Amino acid sequence: MVEEGERAVLLDERGRKYLVRAERRLLHTHLGLLNLADLLGVPFGGRVRSHTGREFVVLKPRMADLLQKMRRLPQVVLPKDAAQVVAHTGVGPGDLVVDGGAGSGALALFLGNLVRPNGKVVSYEVREDFAEVARENVRLAGLEGTVEVKLKDMREGIEERGVDLVTLDLPSPEEVVPHAEEALKPGGYLAVFTPSVEQLQRLYPQLRKGRFAELKTLECLVREWEVKEGCTRPSTRMLAHTSYLTLARRI
Amino acid sequence: MVEEGERAVLLDERGRKYLVRAERRLLHTHLGLLNLADLLGVPFGGRVRSHTGREFVVLKPRMADLLQKMRRLPQVVLPKDAAQVVAHTGVGPGDLVVDGGAGSGALALFLGNLVRPNGKVVSYEVREDFAEVARENVRLAGLEGTVEVKLKDMREGIEERGVDLVTLDLPSPEEVVPHAEEALKPGGYLAVFTPSVEQLQRLYPQLRKGRFAELKTLECLVREWEVKEGCTRPSTRMLAHTSYLTLARRI
Amino acid sequence: MVEEGERAVLLDERGRKYLVRAERRLLHTHLGLLNLADLLGVPFGGRVRSHTGREFVVLKPRMADLLQKMRRLPQVVLPKDAAQVVAHTGVGPGDLVVDGGAGSGALALFLGNLVRPNGKVVSYEVREDFAEVARENVRLAGLEGTVEVKLKDMREGIEERGVDLVTLDLPSPEEVVPHAEEALKPGGYLAVFTPSVEQLQRLYPQLRKGRFAELKTLECLVREWEVKEGCTRPSTRMLAHTSYLTLARRI
Amino acid sequence: MVEEGERAVLLDERGRKYLVRAERRLLHTHLGLLNLADLLGVPFGGRVRSHTGREFVVLKPRMADLLQKMRRLPQVVLPKDAAQVVAHTGVGPGDLVVDGGAGSGALALFLGNLVRPNGKVVSYEVREDFAEVARENVRLAGLEGTVEVKLKDMREGIEERGVDLVTLDLPSPEEVVPHAEEALKPGGYLAVFTPSVEQLQRLYPQLRKGRFAELKTLECLVREWEVKEGCTRPSTRMLAHTSYLTLARRI
Repeated sequence: MVEEGERAVLLDERGRKYLVRAERRLLHTHLGLLNLADLLGVPFGGRVRSHTGREFVVLKPRMADLLQKMRRLPQVVLPKDAAQVVAHTGVGPGDLVVDGGAGSGALALFLGNLVRPNGKVVSYEVREDFAEVARENVRLAGLEGTVEVKLKDMREGIEERGVDLVTLDLPSPEEVVPHAEEALKPGGYLAVFTPSVEQLQRLYPQLRKGRFAELKTLECLVREWEVKEGCTRPSTRMLAHTSYLTLARRI
Repeated sequence: MVEEGERAVLLDERGRKYLVRAERRLLHTHLGLLNLADLLGVPFGGRVRSHTGREFVVLKPRMADLLQKMRRLPQVVLPKDAAQVVAHTGVGPGDLVVDGGAGSGALALFLGNLVRPNGKVVSYEVREDFAEVARENVRLAGLEGTVEVKLKDMREGIEERGVDLVTLDLPSPEEVVPHAEEALKPGGYLAVFTPSVEQLQRLYPQLRKGRFAELKTLECLVREWEVKEGCTRPSTRMLAHTSYLTLARRI
Repeated sequence: MVEEGERAVLLDERGRKYLVRAERRLLHTHLGLLNLADLLGVPFGGRVRSHTGREFVVLKPRMADLLQKMRRLPQVVLPKDAAQVVAHTGVGPGDLVVDGGAGSGALALFLGNLVRPNGKVVSYEVREDFAEVARENVRLAGLEGTVEVKLKDMREGIEERGVDLVTLDLPSPEEVVPHAEEALKPGGYLAVFTPSVEQLQRLYPQLRKGRFAELKTLECLVREWEVKEGCTRPSTRMLAHTSYLTLARRI
Repeated sequence: MVEEGERAVLLDERGRKYLVRAERRLLHTHLGLLNLADLLGVPFGGRVRSHTGREFVVLKPRMADLLQKMRRLPQVVLPKDAAQVVAHTGVGPGDLVVDGGAGSGALALFLGNLVRPNGKVVSYEVREDFAEVARENVRLAGLEGTVEVKLKDMREGIEERGVDLVTLDLPSPEEVVPHAEEALKPGGYLAVFTPSVEQLQRLYPQLRKGRFAELKTLECLVREWEVKEGCTRPSTRMLAHTSYLTLARRI
């Protein structure tokens, strides 16, 4: 049942999605005006109607919805890539994660959702405006108790110790590698996102100097398919590149 | 500090990995014999030596280690694909998941690690021998409180209700779609792994008949890279296909 | 030296390309007006200038230019895919090729360029308007002696015999397979382009019924790279799907 | 009709392929002994039998057969990649091509087959043993009049002028770029195969210094499919990387 001020996802009949709050406000949709106060008392899975009578399904927001609808700065880490960190490190409830730079906080939110309620994500960000966007998104996701955005340059050090996972999405991650080595517990993972090959070429010598094993770099390509009656085929276009993901384990 | 009977990961200097238990037993490694009783009292991150004097780093096992070292039946869902379910559904702590068929339990373990401690994964398996392997792996992972393996044919129904996520890795998932529709809460996700296009062709009509939105099918290709001094390039060979992943959201 | 009425490629300083004819006509370019009569007597490799003084290099057109600049109908076979036919069949000078449907003639031109001067490409097309576009493109490429566009429904039969290669780009290629079997010489190849998996599913039973060996289906993905000082990486987007290519050899 | 000493392809009923010469010799096959003298007088498309009575189809060899069956040194340019040169340059009958290093001659043969009878491929090779293998393969393909293997270090210069296409498959192609620039006619193409990113990083500054336009680098991934009754899917494994192909046009 939606309560006053609560967030909800609205799905229209064409699959368009809205992330809203139950409040006294009109929402302009592609299918007419919708009074958000109408959401009050509707059970999740129920429906509301726009002034033109079109139906919207009311759903409880999940992290996948929040990551789609949050305010994003350019060059966000995409879920397909963030998920490879889960695949290779097994990050989960209770883990202590250090992340940087926060950017709009997409990766911090993604990880915060996985380590809650007892784990913690500390996300470093050197730019105040970015940190503000990230904090706004943490509030949107209701992860204030789990994700902390720290206004600090990671190149000057990582304050946390006994860390399970350090994720880096920075122009020069090689400068942070020694700090990550200090912060990580033995068996913990470093995961680095880098769009260019030059960054890999600078990163590896630094990793090889440190106490790291199981070095691995990968790229993840996701291709969507169209399954229609009589015509099943891949979509015509796809993302050809986002970031390389490099993993290393602290020993 | 490793205690009697506790599991530990041993990494040798060449990156080879062993999943062992601290007990009175000799382990034959590629670098000599190792007395597993020597592990007792060693702190995680510490080292033990084989009879030839070669060092092994002692680490606390993480889910990524367990998934690599558990007993696997053929056609296991790989972490790269399981991770795409996380990317698209945001499954996390506290969620109720229904999975089937369990097979060796790799996907159930992967998900169990993410929903613990308050969530639950119920994994259906129709073959008794498979169910036994899956249960053995649940014990190995210490997830007895979170993952339950049920010896039951999913085509006869799903008993759970209010489910957040149903994952299917079955030859004819289309037969289970109506049961998944009953079991899922509004806003919950169905995620189906299928190796062949014919399975997609049978699955979609069933999904379109049901109360599902946000239908999407994707394939995930992961390519590894070799980053060596003066020679950075993709690896020569890669997995070209595992499974298509189809996602649908219960409305 | 460009002669009256001859075709030439003009490359501007930004890499934009024009396919023109040396004649008394003004060309509007992004860098000003260009009098095409100025091309007369200019050696290939020489330069002409627009009225704003910007330079254009004058080059002799190659097939790659013609395929880029010819009039194209939708769903043309792309050079990357046409080239896979060369890779797998070794089609070359002197070969007799039957092609259908012609569409805008892109594949017929590509193959005509390879079998000339003594080989021949006969391209079937059932729509008169398409056949006209194809013939226009044959003239543009100067391949009138090599490529013949036949206004005829291939499903009613192929008239040629002793054919080295039959290429099909049709909605229902399976209907033409028996005719291709008759037309091909032993050792000759059938190459079929099909966008959907359903077409493959209808094609294979027909191929297996006929005198064909070495059946193979493939898809070809081409990803471009950006090599910039300090930033080498794949382009962000790519074509994810064009057509499957199926090859079979007449025995 | 196969004549004495002529080459022929034999295909057994399982699709295994043999490249043989019609001569008084016994061939050991997986399906029994075959007297190669039996080939004499058999028409192409006809059949011969082994001593166990198993049939073999007799076919006229095509370039695709020769490239599969020729003697290969490691790191040969594969047809899938060679074909992209055709796609992007339109190389065809009559063209003058300079190639280096020859290696086992696979690329020279592939191109020789396309430029014959009036074109020419000059293939440079600095190692005498490689040049000998390449010459042997040229004889095997019957391309003696079209492909010339030159024992010479390409870094010391290219002797030909007015060249339509220069293909390089060398460890340091950047050292040959100025020579290629001299040798190519305006509008001609340079095509460079390089396995590593470091080679691209050294190549581009050299190309940008020279009179080249239309610079492009690409990688070509080919995935095979299995089309079986009721189970259509990509093959499980594939080549993940061979070479990057860089193209540049002389202006």
